[in-house]
Amino acid sequence: MKSEQANHIDSTAAGKLIARRKKQLDANDLISKICNGNTTALSRAITLVESTASTHQELAQQILEGCLPHANKSVRIGITGVPGVGKSTFIEALGNHVIKAGKKLAVLAIDPSSSVSHGSILGDKTRMEQLSTNPQAFIRPSAAGDSLGGVARKTREAIMLCEAAGYDVIFIETVGVGQSETAVHAMTDFFLLLKLAGAGDELQGIKRGIMEMADCIVINKADGENINAAKHAKNAFAKAMHLYPPKASGWQPKTKLCSALNKEGIDEIWELIESYFEQVKTSGYFEENRKNQNTYWLKSSIENALKDRFYNSAEIQEALQKQLIAINSGETTPFLAAQFLLDLNTTKD
Amino acid sequence: MKSEQANHIDSTAAGKLIARRKKQLDANDLISKICNGNTTALSRAITLVESTASTHQELAQQILEGCLPHANKSVRIGITGVPGVGKSTFIEALGNHVIKAGKKLAVLAIDPSSSVSHGSILGDKTRMEQLSTNPQAFIRPSAAGDSLGGVARKTREAIMLCEAAGYDVIFIETVGVGQSETAVHAMTDFFLLLKLAGAGDELQGIKRGIMEMADCIVINKADGENINAAKHAKNAFAKAMHLYPPKASGWQPKTKLCSALNKEGIDEIWELIESYFEQVKTSGYFEENRKNQNTYWLKSSIENALKDRFYNSAEIQEALQKQLIAINSGETTPFLAAQFLLDLNTTKD
Repeated sequence: MKSEQANHIDSTAAGKLIARRKKQLDANDLISKICNGNTTALSRAITLVESTASTHQELAQQILEGCLPHANKSVRIGITGVPGVGKSTFIEALGNHVIKAGKKLAVLAIDPSSSVSHGSILGDKTRMEQLSTNPQAFIRPSAAGDSLGGVARKTREAIMLCEAAGYDVIFIETVGVGQSETAVHAMTDFFLLLKLAGAGDELQGIKRGIMEMADCIVINKADGENINAAKHAKNAFAKAMHLYPPKASGWQPKTKLCSALNKEGIDEIWELIESYFEQVKTSGYFEENRKNQNTYWLKSSIENALKDRFYNSAEIQEALQKQLIAINSGETTPFLAAQFLLDLNTTKD
Repeated sequence: MKSEQANHIDSTAAGKLIARRKKQLDANDLISKICNGNTTALSRAITLVESTASTHQELAQQILEGCLPHANKSVRIGITGVPGVGKSTFIEALGNHVIKAGKKLAVLAIDPSSSVSHGSILGDKTRMEQLSTNPQAFIRPSAAGDSLGGVARKTREAIMLCEAAGYDVIFIETVGVGQSETAVHAMTDFFLLLKLAGAGDELQGIKRGIMEMADCIVINKADGENINAAKHAKNAFAKAMHLYPPKASGWQPKTKLCSALNKEGIDEIWELIESYFEQVKTSGYFEENRKNQNTYWLKSSIENALKDRFYNSAEIQEALQKQLIAINSGETTPFLAAQFLLDLNTTKD
């Protein structure tokens, strides 16, 4: 009986060992394939990164650690604009231009509000017909998820995997109406805002603060009868951007016209982006900014976890609502209420 | 011996009781004097609020609780602009206008970086000669402190005390170059940005994002030879502000000219501010915004305390630096590093 049990334990332990070794073999296999530019392996690794299953997460982290030494070598470009501004046509036009210049291009998207926008962003690869069939391009639909923190993490990790797979240029697309623009700004080197002429309706959707983040504002659909209005809009934005305080990068944000449909202005925009990278790589800002971004992601990951731990308690949630009512009726101050809730949390521990 | 000890304990307990009753009497005395508009009592209470001594803090909190039912009745106006823009002259001119209109005015300042700016902000009451001798005005130099959170708290509490003392209008001044503008924006109803013509040098100092916060941009020193440049700047800013997305308040930000020195344009600016308050009080945004601000201060107080607790450990600080180095050399990701530090913190507990 005893030896039977021992045997059983032995075989379980052996099974676990075999499973662990198999997992490491799987990880090593995927890592070497990714580093050889195998897109099937890359897709599978991103799917593992996006999975919430703990076995998948474990494997994903092994793959990431293996890929890290090969990552960090691309230029990362954030592209934002409200629906209707022509983002897919623009990305297709700029993407094909980049590929013709001899680069490998990955297009990712971040869209935590996909339930609101009905997954319109990159949900359908056929939006970029040419790019999606080009072997030098890798297009990945948006990572799904409820929390911005979670989606941002998945996108950041997908960027690293794409870099390990040898993609030189990475576009990160966002819809410009949600909470994700700050996240995209904090994971890219260059931030491009797409706009239309006629500063009316299409402005309603864009979030405050995004204009000041932009390194370049591109007025799209500058064609046909629209061309004068587009020129007018370009001048207006150029003047507005000159009123902004200077950027830490030392870069003066630019405004450009383009017709993504007619592929006009695309080459100039890419030249502009290249001159940006030349400037910030020479000045050292490129490296400095990436380090600052790493610190930002480290700290925001920690702080989101601390907040989640605190607010996830039902007792705190209930007490918080009561304290808010007391503050709004002038019975306490936000600072006293915060102290009360923090003490409640400490007592609970 | 026993009875002696008992007597001793009794007299200690009695002493404590007397001290506590005396403190409550002190608090009650100050509360009633503040509510009667006694500025000496108000000054003393603000000093208690600003003190870091725990007995002072205890008394300050009693006073605040007593004053709360009488607070929340003013309009709170944030005024920002870089040094040299003429803030004191502007506040003196607008302040005197407000007092002539029959209001009581308090002027507070928030300047956590006072060691950098050498306490230039409101450090010297003589900057506002007329206001500082006007019995309808209460001027209080900037609260000192190292952390923005601490200074913001003191300023918020000083606002409540001023409101209890019957001040109808409260100006909160800030220098516009530090971290404090978001805090001021989050504790005021209306945000005014002072600027000069000639969009060059004076822009260097202003922080990004402040322009989009402004409900009104005032071009100061629009006098003498400067007047055409000022008009030109006003138009440029007006156009730029029209390109911004609309504000939650429904208010379209305005641009105004003024010469604070010659007291020109001051009445128009006050009319504009009054029309703002009429609009947002009618629409319900005024109340809604104050509630949102309360939630903001409650949550940011909690979250700052959580962060302080986490980062204040020497072990965490050391490990954090090591993790940052590992991230920047491609050995780990910000998310894995965050997990490592959070686990370290949990183990420690």
